[in-house]
Amino acid sequence: MLRYVGVEKTKELIAKIGIETFLTELAGYIEEDFKRWEDFEKEPRYASHSSGGVIELMPISDGQQFSFKYVNGHPKNFEKGLQTVTAFGVLSDVETGYPILMAEMTLGTALRTAAMSALAAKYLARDDSKTMALIGQGCQAEFQTLAFKAILGVDTLRLYDVDVKASEKFVRNMKERGFDIKLCQSSQEAVKGADIITTVTADKQRATILSDNMVGAGVHINAIGGDCPGKTELAPEVLNRGRVFVEFEEQSRIEGDIQQMPDDFEVTELWNVFSQGVSARQANDEITIFDSVGFALEDYSYLRYVYEKSNTFEMYDHLDLLALPEDPKNLFGVL
Amino acid sequence: MLRYVGVEKTKELIAKIGIETFLTELAGYIEEDFKRWEDFEKEPRYASHSSGGVIELMPISDGQQFSFKYVNGHPKNFEKGLQTVTAFGVLSDVETGYPILMAEMTLGTALRTAAMSALAAKYLARDDSKTMALIGQGCQAEFQTLAFKAILGVDTLRLYDVDVKASEKFVRNMKERGFDIKLCQSSQEAVKGADIITTVTADKQRATILSDNMVGAGVHINAIGGDCPGKTELAPEVLNRGRVFVEFEEQSRIEGDIQQMPDDFEVTELWNVFSQGVSARQANDEITIFDSVGFALEDYSYLRYVYEKSNTFEMYDHLDLLALPEDPKNLFGVL
Repeated sequence: MLRYVGVEKTKELIAKIGIETFLTELAGYIEEDFKRWEDFEKEPRYASHSSGGVIELMPISDGQQFSFKYVNGHPKNFEKGLQTVTAFGVLSDVETGYPILMAEMTLGTALRTAAMSALAAKYLARDDSKTMALIGQGCQAEFQTLAFKAILGVDTLRLYDVDVKASEKFVRNMKERGFDIKLCQSSQEAVKGADIITTVTADKQRATILSDNMVGAGVHINAIGGDCPGKTELAPEVLNRGRVFVEFEEQSRIEGDIQQMPDDFEVTELWNVFSQGVSARQANDEITIFDSVGFALEDYSYLRYVYEKSNTFEMYDHLDLLALPEDPKNLFGVL
Repeated sequence: MLRYVGVEKTKELIAKIGIETFLTELAGYIEEDFKRWEDFEKEPRYASHSSGGVIELMPISDGQQFSFKYVNGHPKNFEKGLQTVTAFGVLSDVETGYPILMAEMTLGTALRTAAMSALAAKYLARDDSKTMALIGQGCQAEFQTLAFKAILGVDTLRLYDVDVKASEKFVRNMKERGFDIKLCQSSQEAVKGADIITTVTADKQRATILSDNMVGAGVHINAIGGDCPGKTELAPEVLNRGRVFVEFEEQSRIEGDIQQMPDDFEVTELWNVFSQGVSARQANDEITIFDSVGFALEDYSYLRYVYEKSNTFEMYDHLDLLALPEDPKNLFGVL
C-alpha cells in the first residue's frame, strides 16, 4: 500500500517536530540535494496555461528516486475562497517505478519555498541581517518569516500589503513568535532600513513592487512572487544594480523576474554557491537578489524529508492506489 | 475534499456496471473525445528512462478540464512479483486549478487501452471478424479480449505466450465468458485463420512478434506492446504491407512500432477516422494496423467516465490532499 501524508498527517508531523526545526532541517535537505546538482535529470516544468492561471507538473530524478509535484497558480481563486496555490507530490522508487509516498504539498510548497529562501539568504545576505521588509502577507508570509527567524535570526519585520486584513491576519498568527513588527503604509516605507526585502505578491501580471529608488546598498532581495511568464515584481533597474542568483537558469529565464532581461544577463545558479560552502557576498554594500521561481529539486527534498520523518514518527496513512495482484500477471484476478 | 476512487472503489464500480458494459461505455467516451480532437492541448508525454524501465507523466487539457496520468513500465517487475505497469490519474478543473478526482489507473490503463483497441478495430477490422489471435497473456489480455467481445462480437480466441502459465491463467479467468479458446504452440500457429491479431507483449527491446510471412490478407493487427523507444513488436515489412493508424502521430513516431520507419512513412490519426463515422477499411483483403502506444486523451476519457459513474453510484472516498483554510489567505492558520 502506498504511504499517504495528507493535510492532517502533515499538521501532526509539523506539530511533533516544531515548525522552526522543520524548516531548518528541510533547508538542510535542500542544501544537501543542491550540492549534488549534477546527479539530477532536470528540465523546466510542464505548464498548462489558461486565462485564470496555470497547472504545472514538476518532475525530477536522480536515477534512484523520482518525484513530481502537481501545482496550480490561480490568482483569482482567493476571491472564491480558494487557495491561489494548491499542490501535492509523489515520491517514487526508480528501480520498480512504484510510488512510495503521496503527500499534500500546499503546505509543503509554502514550507519548501520558505526553507529555500532562507537558505539562499544565509549565503547571500549580510551576516548581521536582523530586519526584514515583507511585501505581501498572503499564504506564504508566515512560513517565509519563520524560516528567516530560524535560519538567519531575523527578529524585526516591516510589513506592507495592499490588503490591510492580510497584514492583520499575519500579525495575529505571528504575535507570540517574538518578533518586533511594524505595519507600514506603503512598500516605500516598509523597505526603509531593511536588511532583507522579501516580495511575495500574487498578481498574475507585470507589477513593479520594487523600483530602483527603493533599494538601498547592502540589501538582500528575496523575490518570490515573480514566478511565471508575464508575472514579475522587480523593476529591471533593480536587477541591473545587484547580483542575481537563481535555482535553475533554464527555467528562471522563462519564469523569473529575469524574463525582463536580455538572454545574456548574468546570473549564478545557487548550487554553485552552496557547493562553495561560504558566503557569496562580495561586499557589505552589494545588492544581492534571489530570483526565486521554485524548482522541482526543492519538492524532491521536501518529499525525501517527509518520507523519512513520517517513517520515524509513524505518521502516515495508506492508500489503495496501486493494484497488487498476488500473481503479477493476473491483474484481471483483482476484479 | 478531493474525490478518491482507489482499487476497492474501482472494483465496486466495475462490479456494479458490469465489465463489458463498462468497456463499451468507456469506448463511447473515448470516441466522443477523439471526435473533438482540436479542442485539446496535446504533447508527447514526459518520460524519465532508467535501465529498468520508464516513469511517465501524461498531461492533457481541453481548457475546461485538465488530466494527467502517472504510469511506469518496468518489464522486470514481474520477476519481483510486482506489476510491469502501475498507474494513477488525476482530473482537475481548469478554472480553479483544483483536482476533483484521483483514481487508481493500473486497472484503468488496462481498461482504457482495451476500449481504445476495440474502438479502433470497430472502424478498421472486417465486419465479420469473430476470431482473434492473442499473442501475450499478461495483465492486459483479459481486458482486450472482453472489449473485443463486447464491441465487435469476437467469440473465438487463438492464444500464444512464451509463458504457458500465463495462458493457463487467462483460460481460468475467461472460461465462463463463452469463448471458444485454442491454445497454440507458437505465434505462427496462433495467427492462422485469425481475423484480428492482437500483440500485447512486454519486453523492453526490439522484438519481432509478427513477421511478414505470418500476416494474411484482410487481417486487422492490434499492436499494443510496442510503446516506447526501443520497444517494438512488428517487423518493418508488416508495417509496409498494411495501412497504419495511430493515436497521436508526434508521439507514435517516438514510441510506436513506426519508430522503425522513415519520418515520412504514412500514417492516419484515428480521430480522422472516428470523425467520418464510417469504417475506414478500403477492401476485404486490406491489412489494417493500429500501432497503439496509449495517449493522454484516453486517460482523460477514462477519468471523465469514472468521475461521472462514481457520482451516479456514489462510489468514492475522500482524500484530505488539499489544504482548505476558511480564510484563503490564512494557510498558516491550518496549522
